[in-house]
Amino acid sequence: MTTLPTHQGVVDAASSIADILAPTPLLPVTINGTSCWAKAENLQPIGAFKIRGAWWRLSNLSDEERAGGVVAVSSGNHAQGVAWAARRLGIEATIVMPRDAPRVKLDNTKALGADIVLYDRPGEDRDAVAARLIAQRGGTLVHAFGDAGVIEGQGSAGIEAAAQLGRTPTRFITCCGGGGLAAGLALSCPEAAIHVVEPGGWDMVGQALAQGAIVEAAPDAPATICDALQPNATKPVNLAILNGRAKPGTIVSDDEVRAAQRWAYAQLRMVIEPGGAAALAAALSGKVPIDEGTIIMLTGGNADPDAYARTISESAH
Amino acid sequence: MTTLPTHQGVVDAASSIADILAPTPLLPVTINGTSCWAKAENLQPIGAFKIRGAWWRLSNLSDEERAGGVVAVSSGNHAQGVAWAARRLGIEATIVMPRDAPRVKLDNTKALGADIVLYDRPGEDRDAVAARLIAQRGGTLVHAFGDAGVIEGQGSAGIEAAAQLGRTPTRFITCCGGGGLAAGLALSCPEAAIHVVEPGGWDMVGQALAQGAIVEAAPDAPATICDALQPNATKPVNLAILNGRAKPGTIVSDDEVRAAQRWAYAQLRMVIEPGGAAALAAALSGKVPIDEGTIIMLTGGNADPDAYARTISESAH
Repeated sequence: MTTLPTHQGVVDAASSIADILAPTPLLPVTINGTSCWAKAENLQPIGAFKIRGAWWRLSNLSDEERAGGVVAVSSGNHAQGVAWAARRLGIEATIVMPRDAPRVKLDNTKALGADIVLYDRPGEDRDAVAARLIAQRGGTLVHAFGDAGVIEGQGSAGIEAAAQLGRTPTRFITCCGGGGLAAGLALSCPEAAIHVVEPGGWDMVGQALAQGAIVEAAPDAPATICDALQPNATKPVNLAILNGRAKPGTIVSDDEVRAAQRWAYAQLRMVIEPGGAAALAAALSGKVPIDEGTIIMLTGGNADPDAYARTISESAH
Repeated sequence: MTTLPTHQGVVDAASSIADILAPTPLLPVTINGTSCWAKAENLQPIGAFKIRGAWWRLSNLSDEERAGGVVAVSSGNHAQGVAWAARRLGIEATIVMPRDAPRVKLDNTKALGADIVLYDRPGEDRDAVAARLIAQRGGTLVHAFGDAGVIEGQGSAGIEAAAQLGRTPTRFITCCGGGGLAAGLALSCPEAAIHVVEPGGWDMVGQALAQGAIVEAAPDAPATICDALQPNATKPVNLAILNGRAKPGTIVSDDEVRAAQRWAYAQLRMVIEPGGAAALAAALSGKVPIDEGTIIMLTGGNADPDAYARTISESAH
């Protein structure tokens, strides 16, 4: 791991992660008549790819940093990833989570032994809450997306997928919050196109790519069912990597996301949470190109049971 | 393939199936504090292990048999397996299905190009419907469980799981309808214990093992949510293989099955249909022993959406 994430760092992360986690399946899928691939990161032990970045970042901490513990801010999947890696490495983890995070994510993070601090979204600035905590208690911040080690770790999914495919993918279609996974995938396979998919009003990476500068979410940004894809803004490191690789971004609606969740239920027999289905939603709705070398990232499966039940229930729509 | 299924036949089936289907994941799970494994056959292209037996049976048909088409009787997963294999091999398939089969299974079988003939369960004898069809139209019967090729094909899941585990499993815990998968697993790993799990009143293998003779389901057998596990009786070939290997059988209730479906939703982010969750239900409820060499078969994920929504919805229980 270096200060700036590198392709070699992603390769090293993939090697480290292969020692502790089985590869997630790369499943053949047919979308609107075209064969392509889906990477089932929802089948990770914590139900999301975030376990990759958390593991790689935490396993590279110095002994002194380990002793001081880690602090993370997350709506739930990064939280579980950091809590999982911290428990495995014997590190204390404090996680700042929004009070309106899905209960399943709060419960899972708690069950992994992390100390949870709640904040009100959007009233409070979560980075400020984390900075205050670190000023009070010490500890190392593990940023959810704007961190070299985290980006390299997430990118290991691209190395793994390319090995499973037996060649460099032509393109990755991925959901995008702050841009950690997208940046990692871009580094993993320098020749692959990257398509970032975001909810309307929360397309902070798409807007940043369009403007060539970081854009903050509007205070009155619309509600979205994609609880995992609501960053205040992307970070310079993510923009620097994605600039020239991922333009333009793609926006999906809540209805398109729900349709993708239903498709994954019926065709793949897998549970995908709303944010985790965004890339699939873009593919199914024809908003992004697909070919036989395309990999659609299914990034997480920690879905609130009641909301998921309403989404898949045929009598509801 | 021989007239009687053999261990070598299962090994050959596994080799043939490895050429056309990716291995399904063997996922680490922790059940009541004990680490063991879950074989995710719900992730097969048709959402169930039945694709294995259908492929092996159909790919061994003679040219003459292929030209005459195949006939199968199934509540839905064997139907999809036969339809899938038949389409791939260019064979006409006629499937006899109960009128009350889950719509998702009827729709999927139709989408795979099979000709469907409906019958009323339990008023009609499905084997008689199939025999009448064959007398009228010709064709080769592909029995869902009492068939050497089908048993060998299903057993390929055991060969695959043992390879993934890196050693012979100590035991397989499997749901059981007529006993095709259970017999195949028994042949795949002669040193492994086999635990068959069935719904109450439909434990036709458990009762046959206890009595040493085939037992027919009572005309007034109770309703079960496990639509895939309602055989009229097991067959001599299944009983012969399982006798002395699988005694005693285990019974699970609808509530235990639903709890297992919820557990798979939350812990594995996978959709498991009721019958496919029976083995997991037995493990979670402590009715079968578990150790680190135990493999729990998750056999299918073709769940009716409305019923599944009710099962996982937290507000419903």
